Amino acid sequence: MIEYSDVLEAYDRIKEVVNKTPVLTSSTLNRMSKSELFFKCESFQKVGAFKMRGAYNAISKLSQSQKEKGVIAHSSGNHAQAVALSAKLLGIKATIVMPNTSPQVKVNATRDTYGATVVFCENTSVARQKATDELISQYGYTFIHPYDNYDIIAGAGTATYEFLNQVNNLDMIFCPIGGGGLISGTLIAANGFNSNIEIYGAEPQLVDDAFRSLNSGRIEHNKTRNSIADGLLTDLSEKTFGIIRKYINDIINVSEFEILEAMRLLWERMKIVVEPSGACSLAAALTKRISIQNKRVGILLSGGNLDLDPIFQSLKARIEKN
Amino acid sequence: MIEYSDVLEAYDRIKEVVNKTPVLTSSTLNRMSKSELFFKCESFQKVGAFKMRGAYNAISKLSQSQKEKGVIAHSSGNHAQAVALSAKLLGIKATIVMPNTSPQVKVNATRDTYGATVVFCENTSVARQKATDELISQYGYTFIHPYDNYDIIAGAGTATYEFLNQVNNLDMIFCPIGGGGLISGTLIAANGFNSNIEIYGAEPQLVDDAFRSLNSGRIEHNKTRNSIADGLLTDLSEKTFGIIRKYINDIINVSEFEILEAMRLLWERMKIVVEPSGACSLAAALTKRISIQNKRVGILLSGGNLDLDPIFQSLKARIEKN
Repeated sequence: MIEYSDVLEAYDRIKEVVNKTPVLTSSTLNRMSKSELFFKCESFQKVGAFKMRGAYNAISKLSQSQKEKGVIAHSSGNHAQAVALSAKLLGIKATIVMPNTSPQVKVNATRDTYGATVVFCENTSVARQKATDELISQYGYTFIHPYDNYDIIAGAGTATYEFLNQVNNLDMIFCPIGGGGLISGTLIAANGFNSNIEIYGAEPQLVDDAFRSLNSGRIEHNKTRNSIADGLLTDLSEKTFGIIRKYINDIINVSEFEILEAMRLLWERMKIVVEPSGACSLAAALTKRISIQNKRVGILLSGGNLDLDPIFQSLKARIEKN
Repeated sequence: MIEYSDVLEAYDRIKEVVNKTPVLTSSTLNRMSKSELFFKCESFQKVGAFKMRGAYNAISKLSQSQKEKGVIAHSSGNHAQAVALSAKLLGIKATIVMPNTSPQVKVNATRDTYGATVVFCENTSVARQKATDELISQYGYTFIHPYDNYDIIAGAGTATYEFLNQVNNLDMIFCPIGGGGLISGTLIAANGFNSNIEIYGAEPQLVDDAFRSLNSGRIEHNKTRNSIADGLLTDLSEKTFGIIRKYINDIINVSEFEILEAMRLLWERMKIVVEPSGACSLAAALTKRISIQNKRVGILLSGGNLDLDPIFQSLKARIEKN
């Protein structure tokens, strides 16, 4: 397992490269929730998500020989772009395996903006793993797992370390749970900073593997992948589950409508673009299953990447009608 | 006409009440534009727009007797909410005349959230003026014009005063033009701060009254109200035209597609919700009609209020399908 010192070392390694993301507040949301809410906006991070912190930390730490051979990841989401950009900034070759059903905009961002080589595969986990393994055996690439990797976790934890240095005396932090990388880093960082801070995981009811894992004591699996929180569909891993079960206060499951409602508050009231996965932490804080009244509450907004076509198509239609 | 000292006095009057809005930057947009862009985010202002600054300044300055009688405004937009909230904070009665076609969400915000009395009228400028005049003659309310009012202009100018204190050595500022309140305040503030800063107005081609007024030397009128930049549809007034023609460097007209493209950059790359009117300033800066290369460029993002239903309906449909 990793320790607080790993998060501090990760922060030293990445702090000149990643954005120090702002903490926003909203008097309207404070009034509504009868608490003081502090929003750590990793949606403003490079590549639009906290994933940049872990990817840059993990790739920086590779040996010279690993760096010369290059890195590989499979993802169609924020991790792909974080690995691609981190590798680019470090002058390392990156290969990203993506399902051939990935949206063109994500392929373009990964390949053209961030300069990675994109290799397509069938949209199954078996095909993805096979394509990745073949490339590794052929070229000796180092595989960068999105969360089952202590360097990724320590990097993710720097968001919370930074947050705790920006806002004094937080009583609790709410953090989304997908594969568990961000929450694991948060648990290590917060526990090292001040072990009295309560940490709650926020997870969609439809993919409540972490909640069930915590109860059963072993890693449970999701039966569906239907949640709109498309960054939170994956199961925990050995490394993240080990940290979560040791430190977490509780996991709050939220409905799809609670996620959407929280997201709408962030967009309408705070004027920030946050993806459904990112809004889960606010949704969990607003459920009242944990009392937040009169507390100083940290909300980790993990990312802001989503398809904006519906609103821009609607505005475009208005223009064309005029 | 007003002077720099009026802006400074307005700032003293409002600074404890309005938000000191953040200035954001984007390395991606800097790279794209080959300049250093600084975004003053009045979308994060109270009520979601710079209008709060002028309304609070103007209403604060009323005499005791005016305050006791109350204020009135006609608007279905950001000015309505700014007048309502300012009056509420100052303990003054506010009446807002709104067209009976106004979206329910705007009526609710003005009435329920900000506590104003809403009076409906037919959706014509004659009906609106008649309803307002009748209420004034009956109750003695003070009319708060959205821009043809020097206290409103001085208040609007505090956004730029604050901006210039947040970012050193700006070469130029781009600012949206509707009725001209924000640009007039910006011209007074920037000229007083450092008369070398160039100020450019950003105006939709479809409602290019300010551009034509500057050329003809008299106030011109718009023939359509079709732009998606629905905060910029109004003509200039005597007071704003007087300031604009004296100080402005130039006015840049932008197409509807340029506005949409700028708005999409702000949402997708910077993860901030900015309304079409607010995005006009970035659209103007990106036209290349004024060279911004290697310059330090201020972009005033005037507000972030717009109908988000298209994107939330689309997400809701996804939830219901699952």
